[in-house]
Amino acid sequence: MTDLKFISTTSANGVLEREFTLGDLHGMLWSPASADPAPLILLGHGGGRDSKAAPMVGRAHRLTAEGFHAVAIDAPGHGDRPRTALDDEQIAAMQKAMATGVPVGPIVVPYNLHLADLAVPEWQATLDALEQLPELDGRFGYFGLNMGTAIGVPLTAVDPRISAAVFGIFWYDEVLAEHARRIKVPIEFALQWDDQHIPRESSLALFDAFGSTEKSLHANAGAHKEVPRFEVESMVRFFARHLR
Amino acid sequence: MTDLKFISTTSANGVLEREFTLGDLHGMLWSPASADPAPLILLGHGGGRDSKAAPMVGRAHRLTAEGFHAVAIDAPGHGDRPRTALDDEQIAAMQKAMATGVPVGPIVVPYNLHLADLAVPEWQATLDALEQLPELDGRFGYFGLNMGTAIGVPLTAVDPRISAAVFGIFWYDEVLAEHARRIKVPIEFALQWDDQHIPRESSLALFDAFGSTEKSLHANAGAHKEVPRFEVESMVRFFARHLR
Repeated sequence: MTDLKFISTTSANGVLEREFTLGDLHGMLWSPASADPAPLILLGHGGGRDSKAAPMVGRAHRLTAEGFHAVAIDAPGHGDRPRTALDDEQIAAMQKAMATGVPVGPIVVPYNLHLADLAVPEWQATLDALEQLPELDGRFGYFGLNMGTAIGVPLTAVDPRISAAVFGIFWYDEVLAEHARRIKVPIEFALQWDDQHIPRESSLALFDAFGSTEKSLHANAGAHKEVPRFEVESMVRFFARHLR
Repeated sequence: MTDLKFISTTSANGVLEREFTLGDLHGMLWSPASADPAPLILLGHGGGRDSKAAPMVGRAHRLTAEGFHAVAIDAPGHGDRPRTALDDEQIAAMQKAMATGVPVGPIVVPYNLHLADLAVPEWQATLDALEQLPELDGRFGYFGLNMGTAIGVPLTAVDPRISAAVFGIFWYDEVLAEHARRIKVPIEFALQWDDQHIPRESSLALFDAFGSTEKSLHANAGAHKEVPRFEVESMVRFFARHLR
């Protein structure tokens, strides 16, 4: 991995926003106005999104308002990163399944776990570089739903720097559950009670797999994409409880 | 029902605490220092407890700190109210079941639903009397776990004054589920993932029964009596979202 480079910096409403590259990686780092060292929350984006997507910016701004730093990086095949033939094939298969009403889980799960194999070392390299910054206090949390969970669960299982994590909106899978069983840090897990893509039993089984003694499931009425806004507030309080 | 009588009043740390009677009923009313009219949260206590129990006082203080009023009344057979032969018999049966490791649900559920038949009109009479107070703004919420859910679900189903409710830690039962299906107001529902008394599927089925389009399940790792303190904070925010 080459050096961390800040390629653009803006500051508005008390938030310092820095776009960075790290070799082939590209990401966004949001920081609060305060100079006191603070924890960093890793934000994992969903499939088809990237580090600049509106949900990432919204969550980052809520976190900086509470004194946290936040970082997002583009997952493999996402943002301006090149797509492979496999990416194109899997995206086409997902779109076809959605259009024809065929269950999409059997496509999304193995594809996202494949991306996780690539993304976990990228997140770890990002942490290696960012943890040198004096404005960070050495405590780290992770928040990612959908594909952000497929990547975040194996990352949290393997990286001892992450000491609290928020996951959700993903299917049970035996490989993913094995990672979940190794996780002992506090977690919060979101599921949608009326998810049209993820069977309720599948989500509940994934939550059940986590090895954490402190874990909370937040199940809300509504469809796959209708996770309520107040879950972002809950996530902020969760990190405030565990990283402060 | 006879008149509302305040039989003692204390004021400390910005909380006005008034003990009252209403005919045979006895309860506690907690109010914030502010004179602006505010919503009232009904607090349903658990089995074997009463309106002065520590969890009621703790929740009432958190609610008054956020500008709400809170009220608790002693359920039939609880506090200083007389116990019937049925009360004594059911309490002995519960204690025996607990001691011998027999499932306690088949005793608790019908007994608590019997108490609910008596308690619902008592809560309604209490509301009839309290809603005359100028410091209330006409909006009402309900919060009760365990027996507080057995009583609160039929109360919320029948009383249109209650426009948001927090329930949990109770078994699925067909009669209770019928009440739950009639409830359309926003609810939050707590269950303990490792409850030694209430099967997980039973709790999930009761949550599923609620007719509310906005409903949230909070399932936390831990045993029957280990509901985390942060659920009280969540309850306060829930009422702030829906009653302000």
